[in-house]
Amino acid sequence: MITGKNYIGNQLVATGNTTYKTFNPELNIENETVFTEATSQEIDAAVNLASQAFKEFRTISGAKKAEFLNTIADEILTLDDTLVKTYCSETGLPEGRAKGERGRTVGQLRNFANLVAEGSWIEATIDAAQPNREPMPRSDIRKMLIPLGPVVVFGASNFPLAYSTAGGDTAAALASGCPVIVKSHPMHAGTGALVASAIIKAAEKTGMPNGVFSNLNSSGMEVGQQLVSHSEVKAVGFTGSIRGGRALLDLAAKRKEPIPVFAEMGSINPVVILPKALENRNQEIATTYAGSITVGTGQFCTNPGLLLGIKSDALSTFVNNLSQEIMEINPSCMLHPNIKKGYISNKEKVVSQNNVAVTANYESNVQNNYAEQTIVSVEGKDFLENPTLHLEVFGPFSMVVQCENETELEAVITNLEGQLTGTVISDENEVADYSSVISALQNRVGRIIFNGVPTGVEVCESMVHGGPYPASTDSRFTAVGINSIKRWVRPFSYQDWPNELLPNELQKENPLDIFRTVDGIRTK
Amino acid sequence: MITGKNYIGNQLVATGNTTYKTFNPELNIENETVFTEATSQEIDAAVNLASQAFKEFRTISGAKKAEFLNTIADEILTLDDTLVKTYCSETGLPEGRAKGERGRTVGQLRNFANLVAEGSWIEATIDAAQPNREPMPRSDIRKMLIPLGPVVVFGASNFPLAYSTAGGDTAAALASGCPVIVKSHPMHAGTGALVASAIIKAAEKTGMPNGVFSNLNSSGMEVGQQLVSHSEVKAVGFTGSIRGGRALLDLAAKRKEPIPVFAEMGSINPVVILPKALENRNQEIATTYAGSITVGTGQFCTNPGLLLGIKSDALSTFVNNLSQEIMEINPSCMLHPNIKKGYISNKEKVVSQNNVAVTANYESNVQNNYAEQTIVSVEGKDFLENPTLHLEVFGPFSMVVQCENETELEAVITNLEGQLTGTVISDENEVADYSSVISALQNRVGRIIFNGVPTGVEVCESMVHGGPYPASTDSRFTAVGINSIKRWVRPFSYQDWPNELLPNELQKENPLDIFRTVDGIRTK
Repeated sequence: MITGKNYIGNQLVATGNTTYKTFNPELNIENETVFTEATSQEIDAAVNLASQAFKEFRTISGAKKAEFLNTIADEILTLDDTLVKTYCSETGLPEGRAKGERGRTVGQLRNFANLVAEGSWIEATIDAAQPNREPMPRSDIRKMLIPLGPVVVFGASNFPLAYSTAGGDTAAALASGCPVIVKSHPMHAGTGALVASAIIKAAEKTGMPNGVFSNLNSSGMEVGQQLVSHSEVKAVGFTGSIRGGRALLDLAAKRKEPIPVFAEMGSINPVVILPKALENRNQEIATTYAGSITVGTGQFCTNPGLLLGIKSDALSTFVNNLSQEIMEINPSCMLHPNIKKGYISNKEKVVSQNNVAVTANYESNVQNNYAEQTIVSVEGKDFLENPTLHLEVFGPFSMVVQCENETELEAVITNLEGQLTGTVISDENEVADYSSVISALQNRVGRIIFNGVPTGVEVCESMVHGGPYPASTDSRFTAVGINSIKRWVRPFSYQDWPNELLPNELQKENPLDIFRTVDGIRTK
Repeated sequence: MITGKNYIGNQLVATGNTTYKTFNPELNIENETVFTEATSQEIDAAVNLASQAFKEFRTISGAKKAEFLNTIADEILTLDDTLVKTYCSETGLPEGRAKGERGRTVGQLRNFANLVAEGSWIEATIDAAQPNREPMPRSDIRKMLIPLGPVVVFGASNFPLAYSTAGGDTAAALASGCPVIVKSHPMHAGTGALVASAIIKAAEKTGMPNGVFSNLNSSGMEVGQQLVSHSEVKAVGFTGSIRGGRALLDLAAKRKEPIPVFAEMGSINPVVILPKALENRNQEIATTYAGSITVGTGQFCTNPGLLLGIKSDALSTFVNNLSQEIMEINPSCMLHPNIKKGYISNKEKVVSQNNVAVTANYESNVQNNYAEQTIVSVEGKDFLENPTLHLEVFGPFSMVVQCENETELEAVITNLEGQLTGTVISDENEVADYSSVISALQNRVGRIIFNGVPTGVEVCESMVHGGPYPASTDSRFTAVGINSIKRWVRPFSYQDWPNELLPNELQKENPLDIFRTVDGIRTK
C-alpha cells in the first residue's frame, strides 16, 4: 500500500534517482520502504495539474466539498492498524498518541466539512443599489470570500497526522476551494503516503477534479524550494523550525509575485509564576510542570521552555521541586536521531553560556534516541543580556529565569521574541497586581493561559494558534480552528452583476439559506 | 497654520537641514511654505512615542475611539476654505474635487467611528469550559481581535485627503487601536500638515495619549525606509506605484521581524467589451469610456487602461468612435510636473514598441502640466508577446487590444498581472456565453463590474479595493470599507482567564452588548 512513489494527482509516479528511507527511532533501525524524491518535472506536473484543477474546484459547492472532506476522514479511518503501525514505526511515538492524533485529524476534517456545508463562512456582504441617490446613483455591490489558488503544505515532524498530509493546513485549504500539493515530510513519508492515498481515494469517490491533491516525496530542501518558487503556487502553509520557515518566507518574498506564507515556527512559551502562587502551591506547580515539560518528549510547539519568576526562597524551592519531579519521569523516545542530535546540540549551546546552572539532567539508562530531560536556572540580567539563552531547545528542556523584581520581569517579557502562548500561574486575585507584566506578556503572544499549562491546543473556533513573529510569520491568522481557512481566501466584489450569473451565495433569493450581511444587517 | 514642521506627537519639531516646497501645477510655480524633512532622531522619537502611546491606546474603549475619530472629522471640516485652497494649490485639482474628497474622508472617519462604537467588529468568539468532558476537560477559551502596534502610513499622490494623512489607512488603524505615523507625501505636504493639525487637535480634545499620531515630512526615500525598518513599527499601509510599494515590501520582508505591508499599487483595469454590445451600443460605450479614461486626468488607480475586444468591424468602429470622443474632451492638469513627466515617458515607452497604432493623441493647446489624452491600438498576439505593453501609463491613456478570437482573449486575460478591477461590457445574456473568459478575468482581479466603468470606488462594506499582486501586496485584504480594519489586527485568545480581568468585550455579562459567537451560535 505504501509504494514509495509520488502522487501527481491520482497518478503514482517515481522517475527520479534520489531515494531515501524513514527511520524507526525506537528500534534504532531504518524502515524498509524506499521513497523516491520528486523530480523537477514531477513538481511542475503536480503544480500545473493543481492549477488546472483549480478552475473547476474553486466553483464546487460547499456541499460537495463537505462530502470530499468527510470521505477523506472516512478513508483515513479505513486505513486502521496499517496507519497506526506505520505512524509508530516512523516516530517512536506510542499507539495511544497515534490514535489520539488520528482522532484530531479526522475531527478537523469534519469541522471544516460542517463549516463549508453550512456555507455562511464566505462572509457574503451585500449593499443594494440606490439608483436615486444624489449626487450619484449607487451600484449593487456583493462580496464574498473566494479561494487563492494552489496551496503548498509542509507538514510538521512532530504531528505526522494533525499538522501534516491531511492536517489542519490541508483541510482548511481544501475546504476553501484551493488545491493542495503536500511536500511530504521525510521523517514520516510512509504515514504521509498512506494518508495521501486516502485523500486521492476520497477525491475519486466524490468526483473531484484530478490534481486537487498531490503528494511529493522529498528528503532535502530542493522540492520545497521549487514548489514555493513556482508561479502557479499562490500560498504556502508550513509548520516547523524558525530556520526552515524563514527560508521559505524569504523565498516567497523574492518571487516576481510575492505570495503569503503562513509558517507556524518556534516558541518557548513563557510561563510567569507569581510569588503567592509559589508560596502556596509550590509542589503542585512543580509536579504539573514536570509533566508539561516532558509530555510528548517535549516535542510540542507549545512546550513550556521558559519559567519566569521573581527571586525568593519559594522560587529556589520551586527550582528544587521541579528538578526532583522531572527526574522521576521516565525518559521517552524522540522522533528521529536528527531531532535528538538537535536537542543535544541546542542544549549544549545554552548550558555552555556563562552563569547557567543545570539543576536537573537525567543521565542514567537513556537508550538510543531517548531524551534526557533537563532543567536549568539563570538570572534575569543574564537572560536579558544574552540572546543565546532565548534559543528554543526542542525537547524536554526548560529554563527558570530568576528576576530581581517585577521591573526586571517585565523587561524580560518585553524583550522576548513573539510566542504562541504565555501562561500566568497565580493565586486568586494576585494577577490583578501585575497588570503591566500581563500587558507586556499579552503583547508578545497569541494566547494567554491562566493557571494551566500551554501544552494541549484545543481545536475550537475561539483558539488562536499563532502569534507575533517568530511564533508565526503572520500573527493576523491562526493555524488551528475553523478560522484558519481565512489564510487561503480573499474577498471578491461583484458590481451590478446579473443575478442569475452570481454564485449561489450572493443571489438575491439566498438559495443556500446562509447568513449574509445585507445593507449592514446580518440576516438569512 | 502650516508651519512646515514635523508633528512628533503633539510637538512641532524641525531640527533638520533638508527642506523642500510643494508645487502648484496649474500655475506652474512653487508654493511658498518651506517644509523641513524629519531627521533620523525625529523619526526615532516619533516611533518610540507611538510605541509608548500604544500601551494605553490599545486598551481604550470603542466609544472613546469613536469620539476621537468623529472629532478628527469635525476638525477637518473646521479647516474649511484653508484646506480646500491648499489642496487645490498643491494638486491642480478643482475645488469640487477637493470638497468631494473631503466628504469621502470625513465619511470614512465616521464609518469607522460607528464601527468601533458599536463594537461587534472585534469578532468575540467564546467556547465555554466543559469541565466534565472525557477524556480531558475543556478550558474556557475566548477570542477577540486586538491591534498590532504602531502603523506607518504612506499617502497617495492622487488622493491627498481620502488615501493620505487622515485617509482610509489612518482611519482604519486608529479605529483598530494602532497609533499611526504618517510619512507625509511631498507633493501635498501643506494639505497633509493641515490635516495632521486636525488629528492632533482631536487627540488632545478627546484625551488620547500623546504619540497616537505623528506626521513626518519627507522629500525622498530615506524617511520612509527608516520608518519601515524600525523594530517598533508593526505594519505598513501604502498607496502608490508598484516600484515604491515593492521596495517597501522587500524592506519589510528583510527585517529581523518581518511585518505586514499592505500596498495598493498599480492596475490597468481591463475592460472586456463583448461583440454584441459593440454592435448595438458602439457610440454609447465610446462616449462613456472617453469620460472614464479622462476623469481626474486619468489619475485614478481604477482608470481603464486596457480595453479588450475580439476583432470585428464593430471593434474597428469602436476604436474610431472612442478616439473621436476623447479628442472632444478638454485636457486637464496633472498633479505635479513629475507625474506629467512620468506620463510622457511611460507613454513614449509603450508607443515606441512595434505594432502600436496611435489612434488619438490630443496635441494642441496643452499648457504646462496638462495631459494629452491618448488612445492606442494593438493586436492580441503582440500584447501577449510584449510585456512592455502591460505597463501602467498613469494618466488619460488607454490601449485597445484586438484579439483574434475568444481563445486569444482568454489567453490575454490569463496572462495579465493582478488587477484591482475587471469590467465586462455586454448585451443582456451575452455574458453567459463567455463563462471561461469571465472565470479567467475573475481570477486576476479584486472586483468585477458589469456594464459600468471601473472609476469610482464606492465606500461600503461590500467593496473590495485590492486584488492579486501587483494590484495589492496581499489580496486577502481590502483597502476600502470597514473591513480594511482587518489589516491592522490579530486574533488573541484568553484561556481560563478570570472574568473580571477580561476585556469588556469578552466578559460573561457582555457589558458592551455586542454580537458574539458563543459555542458556535451568534448571539448578543
